[in-house]
Amino acid sequence: MTKIITISRQFGSGGRTIGKRIAERLGIPCYDKALVEKIAGETGFSEDYITEASEYAPNIGGFAYSFLGRDVEGLSNADRIWFAERRVILSLAAQGPCVIVGRCADYLLRDREDCLNVFIHAPKDFRARRIVQQYGETAVKPQKRLEEKDRKRALNYKYFTDQEWGKTDNYHLCLDSGYLGIDKATEIILCAAGGADDIQ
Amino acid sequence: MTKIITISRQFGSGGRTIGKRIAERLGIPCYDKALVEKIAGETGFSEDYITEASEYAPNIGGFAYSFLGRDVEGLSNADRIWFAERRVILSLAAQGPCVIVGRCADYLLRDREDCLNVFIHAPKDFRARRIVQQYGETAVKPQKRLEEKDRKRALNYKYFTDQEWGKTDNYHLCLDSGYLGIDKATEIILCAAGGADDIQ
Repeated sequence: MTKIITISRQFGSGGRTIGKRIAERLGIPCYDKALVEKIAGETGFSEDYITEASEYAPNIGGFAYSFLGRDVEGLSNADRIWFAERRVILSLAAQGPCVIVGRCADYLLRDREDCLNVFIHAPKDFRARRIVQQYGETAVKPQKRLEEKDRKRALNYKYFTDQEWGKTDNYHLCLDSGYLGIDKATEIILCAAGGADDIQ
Repeated sequence: MTKIITISRQFGSGGRTIGKRIAERLGIPCYDKALVEKIAGETGFSEDYITEASEYAPNIGGFAYSFLGRDVEGLSNADRIWFAERRVILSLAAQGPCVIVGRCADYLLRDREDCLNVFIHAPKDFRARRIVQQYGETAVKPQKRLEEKDRKRALNYKYFTDQEWGKTDNYHLCLDSGYLGIDKATEIILCAAGGADDIQ
């Protein structure tokens, strides 16, 4: 019986929107930005810093980076965010049914059998159009922006979980939101989770 | 609107069973063994040979293999099976809605927008139990049997399509049949395809 739904997603695939819609339909909380707020509360870092920094693997930038921001216990900022993320996610999951978007929640909750792990992906042209609609134009081309973001998410995931981000085997359900559409993708996940009566 | 559903699957994941059930529920044909019969008719090879040989990439075995079974046009047996497979699959898909299991159908039908491409995977222990139930014990351990078979399918797919077998991006929907179960996996694909009224 599914109690928790984790959603990992390629940048621009609509995974966050899908997560929110599922939570609304099931009448359960969706943790996404709320997760960042809680991690900020635990670590003292700003929400912007957490959003940005936790999508980098701690060894990006090589030797110099590895000394940046280390505290007396030898933990890097990324490590500290990771441990806070872990505490926050385990504690929220223990409180009851919810949807969690991003932040390696699939890995952190891997011992729970009632956790449905979903990965949302989409073709690059679909995602490029979507990030311009959602976040506007920037000096960097949309194609480049999403490649960068995906690369960082993959590195961060690999560093902390030693698993491959977006690899079929790591998820119970992977969906192409570009082909299926946001509405259909939402329906499919609800079908997999078993509906509101089951999940409560 | 989905008209064709292709099912690629890890050995022992229940993909063939799921394909049959979907076809039954939608009242459309499921091409699996029937596909092998048609390819046998086109090429003159036996059904057993096709089943076995078409899951090898032509360069397996290296230099020696590359000369085995080549005809006057320089085509290997695997090449001839591939071309027949292509003709048969394109022709069946042109005849109307259907489910096609295996044989790189997702790649061969990649230009059709009404084709839903599904990949079925499952944890190794689930698949190992299932192949013993379905096909009985052999001298080779089930874990080894499924690794071998998956490796061959991946190589064959790579050789002919230049794509990675089982990679999330190549499919619209990937399902863990071990976690979800055969029944739920069937429901999810039917939900994605839109149901019998849509598909006819």
